Amino acid sequence: MDVFGDRNSGNCLKVRYTADHLGLPYRWHELDLMAGESRTDAFLAMSPFGQVPVVRFDDGRTLAQSGAIIRYLARGSALLPEDAFAQAEIDQWMFWEQNFHEPNVAGARFQVFYRKEPVEARDPLKVERGEAALDLMNEALNTRDFFVGDGLTIADIALLGYTRLAPQGGFELDGRRALTRWIARCEDVLGLPALH
Amino acid sequence: MDVFGDRNSGNCLKVRYTADHLGLPYRWHELDLMAGESRTDAFLAMSPFGQVPVVRFDDGRTLAQSGAIIRYLARGSALLPEDAFAQAEIDQWMFWEQNFHEPNVAGARFQVFYRKEPVEARDPLKVERGEAALDLMNEALNTRDFFVGDGLTIADIALLGYTRLAPQGGFELDGRRALTRWIARCEDVLGLPALH
Repeated sequence: MDVFGDRNSGNCLKVRYTADHLGLPYRWHELDLMAGESRTDAFLAMSPFGQVPVVRFDDGRTLAQSGAIIRYLARGSALLPEDAFAQAEIDQWMFWEQNFHEPNVAGARFQVFYRKEPVEARDPLKVERGEAALDLMNEALNTRDFFVGDGLTIADIALLGYTRLAPQGGFELDGRRALTRWIARCEDVLGLPALH
Repeated sequence: MDVFGDRNSGNCLKVRYTADHLGLPYRWHELDLMAGESRTDAFLAMSPFGQVPVVRFDDGRTLAQSGAIIRYLARGSALLPEDAFAQAEIDQWMFWEQNFHEPNVAGARFQVFYRKEPVEARDPLKVERGEAALDLMNEALNTRDFFVGDGLTIADIALLGYTRLAPQGGFELDGRRALTRWIARCEDVLGLPALH
């Protein structure tokens, strides 16, 4: 399959983490988002959303939205357990990530990391909600090692994407011990270098 | 099951539409969000997210996030076809709805409908992105009757929630003919009164 993405995008990294962990081969196509490469006619023909990541399978079918992609790639693996309620709990965290965590944590990071604005210029509402999202995760991780069940699932991968990169958006993780231990645990399972 | 919700919330209506269509019985518990009823200790014990809807099943387990709830309720029905790629396409629309459509369309409506602010006071970025989301849906519906496959799925229900209520947020739907026809089509299948 072909993966169209940006190596600095947490949403795109979720696809890499999942495919690499499952040993699924892919060709990576790096796009320059700031140069409008996800808004060209050719790209919009693959996905009307005009966002990365997009996966094009070898039969020509395309799929967008990181959550949909990793849920599809992970089917039948331990990253997506068979139990219907476990899947529902995974979905719960993944939808929350896209609705509350990503718009704020990644939104604030976008200002600092992509637009090169100073940390002080971040949208205060995004900062407040991003901090609340990280607190909520830390609290949840006080009583469990992974978000659903006893092992790594795509719920962890979905949350790891931008949480691991949050310091690039001016968010401090060090005071959240359950969260930083969980990041290290995920990095260990996924074979990623420690970022912090 | 018990459903905790707000009858004016599009996210909560998705659960009603799904359960009613599938003939699943439930007890509805109406919460006053503006009075903080989704932030009490009792509510947060059911769901750390502090948002409606939340479903409590008869065995005591709870589930939050509208997308996760309707995907769980719909399993095995025509609202969630068995084909894995069809499910991935449904997920694609549902994640986009929560990440791009809902924060903007429902966000602008929140100002007008809940906070009673004038339409002119809406956040201009939410208005611009909300209009873009409605345009994207209208364009996609030029070539299909439903978002995935030939019949109503939870992708339609997820998108219907706030699209049907968009005029309450100052969004005009009348110029988007494919979109208004799709709303009427969904209302027909779901047995809902025409809102427009």
